[in-house]
Amino acid sequence: MFVHSTHYRVCYADTDQMQYMYYGNYARLYEIGRVEAMRYLGFSYRDFEENGILMPVMDLQSKYLAPARYDELLSIRTTVLELPAARIKFKYEVFNEKEELLNEAFTTLVFVNAATNRPMRAPADFVAALAPHFA
Amino acid sequence: MFVHSTHYRVCYADTDQMQYMYYGNYARLYEIGRVEAMRYLGFSYRDFEENGILMPVMDLQSKYLAPARYDELLSIRTTVLELPAARIKFKYEVFNEKEELLNEAFTTLVFVNAATNRPMRAPADFVAALAPHFA
Amino acid sequence: MFVHSTHYRVCYADTDQMQYMYYGNYARLYEIGRVEAMRYLGFSYRDFEENGILMPVMDLQSKYLAPARYDELLSIRTTVLELPAARIKFKYEVFNEKEELLNEAFTTLVFVNAATNRPMRAPADFVAALAPHFA
Amino acid sequence: MFVHSTHYRVCYADTDQMQYMYYGNYARLYEIGRVEAMRYLGFSYRDFEENGILMPVMDLQSKYLAPARYDELLSIRTTVLELPAARIKFKYEVFNEKEELLNEAFTTLVFVNAATNRPMRAPADFVAALAPHFA
Repeated sequence: MFVHSTHYRVCYADTDQMQYMYYGNYARLYEIGRVEAMRYLGFSYRDFEENGILMPVMDLQSKYLAPARYDELLSIRTTVLELPAARIKFKYEVFNEKEELLNEAFTTLVFVNAATNRPMRAPADFVAALAPHFA
Repeated sequence: MFVHSTHYRVCYADTDQMQYMYYGNYARLYEIGRVEAMRYLGFSYRDFEENGILMPVMDLQSKYLAPARYDELLSIRTTVLELPAARIKFKYEVFNEKEELLNEAFTTLVFVNAATNRPMRAPADFVAALAPHFA
Repeated sequence: MFVHSTHYRVCYADTDQMQYMYYGNYARLYEIGRVEAMRYLGFSYRDFEENGILMPVMDLQSKYLAPARYDELLSIRTTVLELPAARIKFKYEVFNEKEELLNEAFTTLVFVNAATNRPMRAPADFVAALAPHFA
Repeated sequence: MFVHSTHYRVCYADTDQMQYMYYGNYARLYEIGRVEAMRYLGFSYRDFEENGILMPVMDLQSKYLAPARYDELLSIRTTVLELPAARIKFKYEVFNEKEELLNEAFTTLVFVNAATNRPMRAPADFVAALAPHFA
């Protein structure tokens, strides 16, 4: 299991008139969470794309437990639950400054060869970097 | 079961550099789908709020089956699966112009009394308007 | 001068906690305004791109005169002020249902050859379609 | 003159299919720029709102000089050009990692008393904190 945390400040653009962070804007948090988790491991999704590897999202499940509010500095805890093969599944937990769990979510992303538009296996060096966390 | 369809044109703001509609932007489609379904029944979410009834989203599940593309005129088919009590569950199916199913999703929303910030039952007239569809 | 009007329903995603449409979300209205104006003339920006013509935005000026509110059905009136050459300038006026002017804006877009990434002249058939409106 | 810089990582949600940061998403950068400039001075816009002071945007001018790209770590340089009275004007300059100027913009915000919905003067302590920078 690999876990990584990053931060996100809720901006006005994220809020809605209920004074909540709009439910659709959490997808941005999950994106930031997984990209920063990958960066921490030494991998950039930008490099993946430049090398012809796309990672579209296949599915998303999200539970909104309590609202995120304007200007809160959220913690996004991203977990890779198992070693990726053709797919990678991330878990996300979003906490506010009081360490209350606001949101819990899962996404599955698939590795796609941009040249052929066909599924492919996760890059070997990426799997190798994750492997020690699953030993 | 109550089913209602509405349309949505994918705009440039919705796209990402993969030339897909960004996965987080589907939440906007679901919102439009359920609000227009309610409007068709004679209810406006704006009126609900003005009468002190909020409907925050509790959970979301979404399956991305194929990408929505720029300028496609999507159909959003929204289904109320059962008569609401303290919660209401919507199903959404998003189709492109070729009637291919691109996305399937579910949300649960909870009825909240804005004055007390406590859960409440669905408004009786709203339930009454839905009831004939579940006879 | 060519003028075209289209409609836009303010959704919850557009609002912020001031209960205004967030100032950054008007760019989406302008985009919809100019794309629908082009479509009315028989041109689709999607076709432009598929034919290697990009139209990035060079500048934007916007005046926020009064807030757009949730669920309002806005009118977007888009005007092409002069025949385009290497650039095209649009004016936008956003009205609410009471025909109050909420926002007035201008954008300049440049025609770019996607193959060379260099500026180009507006497509001749597009200029020809606009010309009668400037006679 | 008061100048403050902050950073912003372009995420996938910000991009469009031209592989540019969508022109409407820069408004988010400006918001982050001015809010962090205020925070640096010891003021939080959240506190302003909690004390009944709103700051809606009145106008925006933006020049898009070169595209911001996915995953770039942008610098947002925010300048307060003059001491605020009933209004405050911010200038924003957005740079990429090569210190190329990508975007230059101005916004005017007005101070509004939330209780009366009327314009008001900038809070005295906020003006006092800015004053030394204009000596």
